[in-house]
Amino acid sequence: MDKRTKYFLDEESIPTQWYNIQADLPEPLPPVLHPGTGQPVGPADLAPLFPMELIKQEVSTERWIDIPEVVRDIYRLWRPTTLYRAHRLEKALDTPAKIFYKYEGTSPPGSHKPNTAVAQVYYNKQEGINRITTETGAGQWGSSLCFGGSFFDVEIKVYMVAISYHQKPYRRIMMETWGGTCVPSPSPDTNSGRAMLEKDPDCPGSLGLAISEAVEDAGTRDDTHYSLGSVLNHVLLHQTIIGLETKKQLEMADAYPDIIVGCIGGGSNYAGMFLPFVKDKIDGTKPDLRIVNVEPASCPTVTKGLYAYDFGDVAGLTPLLKMHTLGHEFIPPPVHAGGLRYHGMAPIICHLHKLGLVEARAEHQLGTFEAGVQFARTEGIISAPETDHAIRATIDEALKCKETGEAKTILLAHSGHGHFDMAAYEAYLAGKLEDYAYPEEAIKKALANLPKTG
Amino acid sequence: MDKRTKYFLDEESIPTQWYNIQADLPEPLPPVLHPGTGQPVGPADLAPLFPMELIKQEVSTERWIDIPEVVRDIYRLWRPTTLYRAHRLEKALDTPAKIFYKYEGTSPPGSHKPNTAVAQVYYNKQEGINRITTETGAGQWGSSLCFGGSFFDVEIKVYMVAISYHQKPYRRIMMETWGGTCVPSPSPDTNSGRAMLEKDPDCPGSLGLAISEAVEDAGTRDDTHYSLGSVLNHVLLHQTIIGLETKKQLEMADAYPDIIVGCIGGGSNYAGMFLPFVKDKIDGTKPDLRIVNVEPASCPTVTKGLYAYDFGDVAGLTPLLKMHTLGHEFIPPPVHAGGLRYHGMAPIICHLHKLGLVEARAEHQLGTFEAGVQFARTEGIISAPETDHAIRATIDEALKCKETGEAKTILLAHSGHGHFDMAAYEAYLAGKLEDYAYPEEAIKKALANLPKTG
Repeated sequence: MDKRTKYFLDEESIPTQWYNIQADLPEPLPPVLHPGTGQPVGPADLAPLFPMELIKQEVSTERWIDIPEVVRDIYRLWRPTTLYRAHRLEKALDTPAKIFYKYEGTSPPGSHKPNTAVAQVYYNKQEGINRITTETGAGQWGSSLCFGGSFFDVEIKVYMVAISYHQKPYRRIMMETWGGTCVPSPSPDTNSGRAMLEKDPDCPGSLGLAISEAVEDAGTRDDTHYSLGSVLNHVLLHQTIIGLETKKQLEMADAYPDIIVGCIGGGSNYAGMFLPFVKDKIDGTKPDLRIVNVEPASCPTVTKGLYAYDFGDVAGLTPLLKMHTLGHEFIPPPVHAGGLRYHGMAPIICHLHKLGLVEARAEHQLGTFEAGVQFARTEGIISAPETDHAIRATIDEALKCKETGEAKTILLAHSGHGHFDMAAYEAYLAGKLEDYAYPEEAIKKALANLPKTG
Repeated sequence: MDKRTKYFLDEESIPTQWYNIQADLPEPLPPVLHPGTGQPVGPADLAPLFPMELIKQEVSTERWIDIPEVVRDIYRLWRPTTLYRAHRLEKALDTPAKIFYKYEGTSPPGSHKPNTAVAQVYYNKQEGINRITTETGAGQWGSSLCFGGSFFDVEIKVYMVAISYHQKPYRRIMMETWGGTCVPSPSPDTNSGRAMLEKDPDCPGSLGLAISEAVEDAGTRDDTHYSLGSVLNHVLLHQTIIGLETKKQLEMADAYPDIIVGCIGGGSNYAGMFLPFVKDKIDGTKPDLRIVNVEPASCPTVTKGLYAYDFGDVAGLTPLLKMHTLGHEFIPPPVHAGGLRYHGMAPIICHLHKLGLVEARAEHQLGTFEAGVQFARTEGIISAPETDHAIRATIDEALKCKETGEAKTILLAHSGHGHFDMAAYEAYLAGKLEDYAYPEEAIKKALANLPKTG
């Protein structure tokens, strides 16, 4: 038996190329549509918001895309990240399963997000852009973009979902420490924000609404671009560095996963892990590989949403994406996993789901924190509430193995630490954590207002 | 030129033995005295508080002491830690100096403290002890001991300096997540705490007072031992794993430091780094090596204190240690670097200072945060306020090199991240951070009340 706890790679092993799943899809992705014309968008439509290099990556069908040396050089500060074998969790569960986890929490912002943040700021800077806006849920994305901005002297303005802004003030200070600015969304700084504040001054906000504000800000200023931390193809592309490293590390352990588990909000961390593996399923090498997407029961985009064209934001400013959606007007309950509070999902994940290549399940908040505490008391790491969703499913799969006696290999995509989520753990430990139900009525209402296409 | 950013070691390279400086001291350490008799303490005097194995380590003159395999196995969760070359900071400073930093912030509690916490809980458990008390300043030590307790099913009770308890609630929740309990000190749970609360209900507390409470708790219960996170010889011994790893990593970089810089509160992190190097200075191999201890100007133990016998705690319950002291009754100003708010210092460091083998300097709070923000915006890592003291001195040494044109090699002992100190960064960024002066009168008063010996 391999007794190692960790699988290290040296910095020269950081991949030199990202993997682009669009080269290997059995069917191409449905096109992105212009909300006015209903026709597929072209590069010119996206140019006010994104640099041309990212627009090209969005639609590229090249299998491998070079990582710029400047970006790879910044990756060295925390990459390659460590792959762990969860010996202690396995023992506590008394399971024959082998559990591995790839831990992205040692990046300075504490999650996988800088993998794409640094690349996006770089490509913008290359094209002369010195100001970028974005939205953030739990604050992981906003702090990562500010971290990226600090390396290239690019000004970052972050619209942070109000509920998280107030629950997690330290994430905002982190952004400021790296030189960025951050306001709660809805904010009085944009038309979308002002409209929502008028309707509901206490609106907890949502990722969809914060996107509206950031897009509006960027769209109305020539010197400014917009950056998205998840959902889009180029974001998932940058995150594939996670799965590429993991493949090399699992080879060191002489292992290959039977099941890969990760949490999905917009989908980028988890897709970054599984895309280099789903390739093996598409080409028939690993037909039995199971890829399990875990989402919150209170925001069950893939398990309960429709697969349809919808806006990425609340105000309807973005192009239309074919994806699982709960309706762009849906505002999810204020669960602590702020990064999973999104009505839509990465089109790549939804497409793979439709093709039967990945599966999805939904978890309730209480069970995810129970799993998170068990993980902290065995593996030592206090995880982000988002990650706790994936830990819940990992533990459940390992317990199934205990019943069946199967020694399956489970790979957990661990997206980050919970150092800025301790208030949520306090509520859980004090027995005061709410366990939001499936918000059926709100979703039904939002789904009735999907945009018309075709 | 070596362009690497990081120097990794695999987990098999975790040292198998700690280095004991007592084997190589030119003169032995002064004895620890019994506060009642004024005579050197023996093992029996310490047995109510510590397991025999730690008491033996406290006085051992063996050069190498085996790390128990169980402890080493837990170390694997985060060790070996990474040694970085600070290319970006060097460039920002435009210095010819080479700056390396050994980063202990990737341990689950976020600092160097678990290096000794895990070992101490292990030795206690081996001798049948299932409950341990301790004190904590900034919370790094308390959370680390709870982390250690979670692996061995040992109950941990932490007395946390009140000012930090209120400034850093998330550290407390971290302790609870790992299964420990935490109360603010002064607390109503002990005689020492009650006496102080009667004198001053708003007392901000101090490490010295919290030690009194934890020692009293352990001393009055048969089932309970006490654990100290710094100062004592066995604690510094366990931390030498930092310096031992660093030596191997610097060999990979083909480098040896001209200057080693670290912050000192009780002294354990920094001594853990420099002790394996000071050996080279004692034996004449590296006569010019400079070892720079950095402390707060508001709690300047080595730079302004007396080298005398004093209690380790406020209430006078501990044995007497020969050390630099500001007087055990001195309560330092509430600087954010809670881990540096201690009236005394590790006797080993003081002894080496007296022998002229190490030097010390004091830094003001404002300058340390300025350095911390510069480090965050170049190297990406947001550091603990304690560490910011060492970063300040590192930057100043590198700027001196810029003046003189010398390409010195500077090694920074980076003790941990500042994720639980963001309120301090907020105050700094808002221009609201206080810059406490040298509290001359309070120290004069406390020094007038040193215990009589001999």
